[in-house]
Amino acid sequence: MATQESESPLDVQRLREDFPVLEREVGEGTPLVYFDNAATTQTPKQVVEAITEYYYEYNSNVHRGIHQLSQEASVAYEEAHDRLAEFVGASGEREEMVFTKNTTEAENLVAYAWGLNELGEGDEVVLTEMEHHASLVTWQQIAKKTGADVRYIRVDDEGKLDMEHAKELVGPDTAMVSVVHVSNVLGTVNPVSELADMAHEHDARIFVDGAQAVPNRPVDVEAIDADFYAFSGHKMAGPTGVGGLYGKKHLLEEMEPYQYGGEMIRKVDFEDATWNDLPWKFEAGTPVISQGIALHAAADYLDEIGLDRISEHEEYVTEYAYERLSEIEGIEIYGPPLGEDRGGLVSFNLDGVHAHDLSSILNDYGVAIRAGDHCTQPLHQKMDIPASVRASFYLYNTRAEVEALVEGVEAAKNIFA
Amino acid sequence: MATQESESPLDVQRLREDFPVLEREVGEGTPLVYFDNAATTQTPKQVVEAITEYYYEYNSNVHRGIHQLSQEASVAYEEAHDRLAEFVGASGEREEMVFTKNTTEAENLVAYAWGLNELGEGDEVVLTEMEHHASLVTWQQIAKKTGADVRYIRVDDEGKLDMEHAKELVGPDTAMVSVVHVSNVLGTVNPVSELADMAHEHDARIFVDGAQAVPNRPVDVEAIDADFYAFSGHKMAGPTGVGGLYGKKHLLEEMEPYQYGGEMIRKVDFEDATWNDLPWKFEAGTPVISQGIALHAAADYLDEIGLDRISEHEEYVTEYAYERLSEIEGIEIYGPPLGEDRGGLVSFNLDGVHAHDLSSILNDYGVAIRAGDHCTQPLHQKMDIPASVRASFYLYNTRAEVEALVEGVEAAKNIFA
Repeated sequence: MATQESESPLDVQRLREDFPVLEREVGEGTPLVYFDNAATTQTPKQVVEAITEYYYEYNSNVHRGIHQLSQEASVAYEEAHDRLAEFVGASGEREEMVFTKNTTEAENLVAYAWGLNELGEGDEVVLTEMEHHASLVTWQQIAKKTGADVRYIRVDDEGKLDMEHAKELVGPDTAMVSVVHVSNVLGTVNPVSELADMAHEHDARIFVDGAQAVPNRPVDVEAIDADFYAFSGHKMAGPTGVGGLYGKKHLLEEMEPYQYGGEMIRKVDFEDATWNDLPWKFEAGTPVISQGIALHAAADYLDEIGLDRISEHEEYVTEYAYERLSEIEGIEIYGPPLGEDRGGLVSFNLDGVHAHDLSSILNDYGVAIRAGDHCTQPLHQKMDIPASVRASFYLYNTRAEVEALVEGVEAAKNIFA
Repeated sequence: MATQESESPLDVQRLREDFPVLEREVGEGTPLVYFDNAATTQTPKQVVEAITEYYYEYNSNVHRGIHQLSQEASVAYEEAHDRLAEFVGASGEREEMVFTKNTTEAENLVAYAWGLNELGEGDEVVLTEMEHHASLVTWQQIAKKTGADVRYIRVDDEGKLDMEHAKELVGPDTAMVSVVHVSNVLGTVNPVSELADMAHEHDARIFVDGAQAVPNRPVDVEAIDADFYAFSGHKMAGPTGVGGLYGKKHLLEEMEPYQYGGEMIRKVDFEDATWNDLPWKFEAGTPVISQGIALHAAADYLDEIGLDRISEHEEYVTEYAYERLSEIEGIEIYGPPLGEDRGGLVSFNLDGVHAHDLSSILNDYGVAIRAGDHCTQPLHQKMDIPASVRASFYLYNTRAEVEALVEGVEAAKNIFA
């Protein structure tokens, strides 16, 4: 089957050696086929070793210590910010890169720290119908607190944004446009740069949820002209418990803090407080030290392979999965058709089989996929489906593995026929 | 020197083998003496191995997946909540234990989710003069947002709370009492149970910052009758990036969410959303999965040694440090005198030597201590000192190591004499 992968730009068999979990078996001797990468990617040895090295060699709290370990941990943690800023194309280094717990916290940080102060009656927040709950629920609730209104850019039948509708919605009342870069369900790659221009024409801000973009393709926040851009460590070969929030420096400077506590203050007395420099103003308390350092290792790992090549490999696997699944009668695949720029995932349903049942049968075949609403209930309501099955790919997946998926789907079809 | 440790209940030399970082040298062959445990404790192999095992065997997103890895990760992550609830004496299992990023986030969670809704003009938040910025700055800012007032219980000359003053302050206008269990500067162990009774007499809530208590002594949130109780993983032999918030179930149920996103919702449409069960309602987005699982391992590690014995050992080292430092002319030690119940730390200044210079010289002796305001600027203003030096001990520290501290302090004295 190795020849099947010959057109990929990656030496996948070599890369798989970096991921011990891929050797796992599920049930009785069934090899694991891990196709749940849009939920969490696997973590290479290089990243796990960075964690171990941290705890075994220089574990210490940062910023406040003069001693050797604290100096070493501080330098590593601070440099991780510079590295991740560079990774997404931000020229402002650490001052434009805040480490959060995850993408969701980045959304909440901006919604609270910017939104609570800037939004009011008559203001509009423009989202899309394909937003993840991280964005959709957060802006919905912040809008409720501030009296602002939420509008949704329509998704068309091919799973793409209706840009005519976007032009209607984004106008003088728009204060914020919050949009997902790559849809975690449809795979749609949204024209975020065009949306940024629209927002800026009306002096609105744009927040881009890049959770499904940063791990899989080169991202340049300055080329997009995003005001804020968020991503998660655990979806890019990094650890759980860390995410990144890029923000334009002048915006982060103007914003009030979100969480309060140690690290983020400059002066405190019994009456009031002033705030620390960027990005520490937004990192209250002991930060995600080992996680940030491990995320640096993940960025190095991905850059060494090359985001262009990872993207190309994902396309190579996705295309095959799309084609093979399309051949199965009763399959409906969501999102843009083949040939369009697409994220490395395929979401679908099999006629007459609930997504959860299909997921359960696929697990018997060793195939780990996700069934459900993928944190996009409103999109599923609009598509009039209770749930969908999503197979999502990463740099270590192969076309050979897709065969196991196809085999499992066909088995499910026979069981429920 | 081994005989010096003979009165400790712990086999410290054996335990030190669990902490590879303790073998480190600082500079040219100087053994590390790690006395910065109140900032961050070191992490035993058992905890690091739990992290590695997670990434190499069952790394997956939780709750939403039907496949094998997701099931395994979900069970481990959910059981970690039960374990930490048990660890602090909560009978409500996972429903009363929220995992946060750190203690600071736990403070902010309650201040936002409870405080923003419950506080208003005329309400009072009662803190103490020894509060950490995590509590002090957070309640200060939430009070500003809501029009509530902040009051501070006085700290007396011995570093203890003036409980007569507490009785004056806690009254019918009090809505929240937020108090540190063990002071991170003075070592004072506050009568939190008594303060809880005072708060409850006036239908106020009590939040206890247990960051310096949970790692070092048995804690029973129900015996204290705390409404909320917070702690950090990285101060209790666990990883960075995770903390715990205990809350009484009925309070957590009544509270609005803090952060919005995936995991924390039940139903979402384009108009509004409803919330998930406890504790997931307060854990938006992909949670701190590997960190929570590693924290479980840390709790097991500490329980196997025994919190009573850890506390006794810390007292044994602290007493010695206090005595030996007291013998040095020009030393001023802060906090309650020996003989009182005290946390495992000694904060002090050496006459004529700035805390930062002292810290720097101690580093030359391999001794890692912390110099600064320890996130308690108002307390330092009250004590009329710009900074202090803090040596803080944990289960792996020895009286022999205290000698290196004393030697370093004496050297500093000679340099600046």
